[in-house]
Amino acid sequence: MMKTKTTFIEVARDSDFTIYNLPYGIFSVGASAPRVGVAIGDWILDLNVLEQEGLLPTPGANVFAEATLNSFIALGNDVWKKTRQRLQDLLSTDNTELQDNHSLRGKAFVKQSEATMHLPVEIPGYTDFYSSREHAFNVGCMFRGPENALMPNWTELPVGYNGRASSVVISGTDIIRPSGQIKLPGNERPVFGACQKLDFELETGFIVGKATELGQPVSVDEAPKYIFGMVLLNDWSARDIQQWEYVPLGPFNAKTFGTSISPWIVTMEALEPFRCENTAQDPEPLKYLQEKQDSNYDIQLQVAFEVNGEETVICNSNFKYMYWTMAQQLTHHTVSGCNLRVGDLMGSGTISGPEKSSFGSLLELTWNMTEPLTLKNGESRNFIQDNDTIIMRGYCEKDGVRVGFGEVRGKVLPALKW
Amino acid sequence: MMKTKTTFIEVARDSDFTIYNLPYGIFSVGASAPRVGVAIGDWILDLNVLEQEGLLPTPGANVFAEATLNSFIALGNDVWKKTRQRLQDLLSTDNTELQDNHSLRGKAFVKQSEATMHLPVEIPGYTDFYSSREHAFNVGCMFRGPENALMPNWTELPVGYNGRASSVVISGTDIIRPSGQIKLPGNERPVFGACQKLDFELETGFIVGKATELGQPVSVDEAPKYIFGMVLLNDWSARDIQQWEYVPLGPFNAKTFGTSISPWIVTMEALEPFRCENTAQDPEPLKYLQEKQDSNYDIQLQVAFEVNGEETVICNSNFKYMYWTMAQQLTHHTVSGCNLRVGDLMGSGTISGPEKSSFGSLLELTWNMTEPLTLKNGESRNFIQDNDTIIMRGYCEKDGVRVGFGEVRGKVLPALKW
Repeated sequence: MMKTKTTFIEVARDSDFTIYNLPYGIFSVGASAPRVGVAIGDWILDLNVLEQEGLLPTPGANVFAEATLNSFIALGNDVWKKTRQRLQDLLSTDNTELQDNHSLRGKAFVKQSEATMHLPVEIPGYTDFYSSREHAFNVGCMFRGPENALMPNWTELPVGYNGRASSVVISGTDIIRPSGQIKLPGNERPVFGACQKLDFELETGFIVGKATELGQPVSVDEAPKYIFGMVLLNDWSARDIQQWEYVPLGPFNAKTFGTSISPWIVTMEALEPFRCENTAQDPEPLKYLQEKQDSNYDIQLQVAFEVNGEETVICNSNFKYMYWTMAQQLTHHTVSGCNLRVGDLMGSGTISGPEKSSFGSLLELTWNMTEPLTLKNGESRNFIQDNDTIIMRGYCEKDGVRVGFGEVRGKVLPALKW
Repeated sequence: MMKTKTTFIEVARDSDFTIYNLPYGIFSVGASAPRVGVAIGDWILDLNVLEQEGLLPTPGANVFAEATLNSFIALGNDVWKKTRQRLQDLLSTDNTELQDNHSLRGKAFVKQSEATMHLPVEIPGYTDFYSSREHAFNVGCMFRGPENALMPNWTELPVGYNGRASSVVISGTDIIRPSGQIKLPGNERPVFGACQKLDFELETGFIVGKATELGQPVSVDEAPKYIFGMVLLNDWSARDIQQWEYVPLGPFNAKTFGTSISPWIVTMEALEPFRCENTAQDPEPLKYLQEKQDSNYDIQLQVAFEVNGEETVICNSNFKYMYWTMAQQLTHHTVSGCNLRVGDLMGSGTISGPEKSSFGSLLELTWNMTEPLTLKNGESRNFIQDNDTIIMRGYCEKDGVRVGFGEVRGKVLPALKW
């Protein structure tokens, strides 16, 4: 049971942004410069204002005036901890420093509804894993049958690949339907055209908080110290383009047209109370992947379609279904010597659970178009159509304490005319 | 036939760095700050010094004091052209501005042997293609037989994948032998250990000179305008790690431990006289990949082993063997909407020619360890051993004019002890 914390800011009962959370983001209002804030209730607390007032434990660093969180994150674990504690204090009902300083409060709080959110970090490298067993099994079943569904390497290592960092966008960015080469069954050659099988993938991503040198692996027990926080991630996927291009070097154009992330980075400290047991791994992984401590998290995840303003929830999953943990992913990423940079983004891979309703992609939810989804307005969907919006949400809840991610949303626009 | 240009700087007959070349790099001397220079003979001309003297057509931009070329490159095509012309003028025998200003010459020229070279660009994204037909065929033959050597998509599109930008290093950087999961034949499970099949891949890379917006493809006829210049690239590869990990999402740990590039970016303007006919493509590519103009280049390439200070040349290849051109690669990269950034690096893929002596990797040169190479000192090699150095060189030559890349070299150090 956590010690109860109360804040003088009004926070709705079902708000993701409680005093237990305090996620970091980059915001601007009107033409003002993007800067660092934390979300609390419906508000953003402007950390640049607090820093300038000398109220934060980062004197002279000026990190909160910047347009990305990279410099703050690079200050390291101790500073993250101190800043978080200080912010919880400043927002607490027991503390009058900010509470009773009305002119400061007027400057320091901005309504979320009046702010524009920006990418929270500059992302030097983006890696996407493939770490939900249910997802890998489902996809394998459809294309290779249940006997050969999982590749032999899948249970030995967290399979991952380098994604395209330049095309990671903030929630709310429209996604233009990609065009590319598509090989239709029965045709000898591919045709060029707009993707007909546009899908989402329900993922989370973690943000690397500490750089490493080339050639210096990170042990699995040290790995959690290298993780700053998490976001929601929609790994938009063009299934028809992917199917034709991905052998032998992996997905490329099918993914590089856009990857959406949520604006608020929920810190690992905020997620700590929701740590839960790791998924049992069989066979026992090789030694370099064996963790002494559980590093899984109970995070409820949801996907909805929004069509003509009407929402239909189509998936309820949970981060805890992950087979490989973030610590194992990070360690495996560095095991051959690959260096990390502050702000690197690592995607979980599609997070599917055991039930059909928890499958994290349309490919799985419709079982490769054999069982179309029905939306509230009566329309059916095998894949995403133009002007459909996909919304993903995530939150943790335990003992009356809620820590949430808000949402990542993206609307699909028609393909370019060629 | 080019108009003959002469310079007052002494340039050896076989120098890569003639007045026709003038490649850009980042250098420092002692503890001085890294800055921009061009290579001429055995010298580096310090562009920051020239810029401060007001001798260059970039007034006030201060781009040559920076530690990467990104800001200069971002100024655009016209500025590249003007700067190159101005530098050729300033170095010309006919021009006295620099030639007769002895105090300026004393400041502006640095001996290459006294300078340290740095990565020439900050690389936001690194992509590696697989565009030599001979290489793809050779590798396919070894693993699938000649009938199925080329995947069906190979002749339809320039297959590529996202590499790891953080681990791209400058020539001269030691490479630590990677460790990872290796699945030995006959074993049920993989073991963890040092790579036993460390290979090089002879490649070139091009540097993107112009950014694009997400969702805005670049046509194949426009593509050459987006390319600033080229470097030599060694795509170090851990074959045993690769073989186990690469299905289905492509190579990861097998490549991310290091990719070496040469320090000097040879501009496309310098390479223009060496443009040559494209390789015939059968089938004719889809329309978006059809070029109106040849965009292939005749660049001689060489790989050597250096063991105990003694060099053995083991491969002579040529960039002109490429099946897919750089313009086609860049266009295909953007076709689904992926955005480019200034400084993005795109690797050619291993460049193998038709003769065995022109194969661009040890895997091919030894035909998967069945025909070991013999070095000058009598030792044999199937793969790279600890303390071996791999050197790649490249140059163009025509009508007595030489434009070269210098070299990219890297020494392999023993694996970490676990």
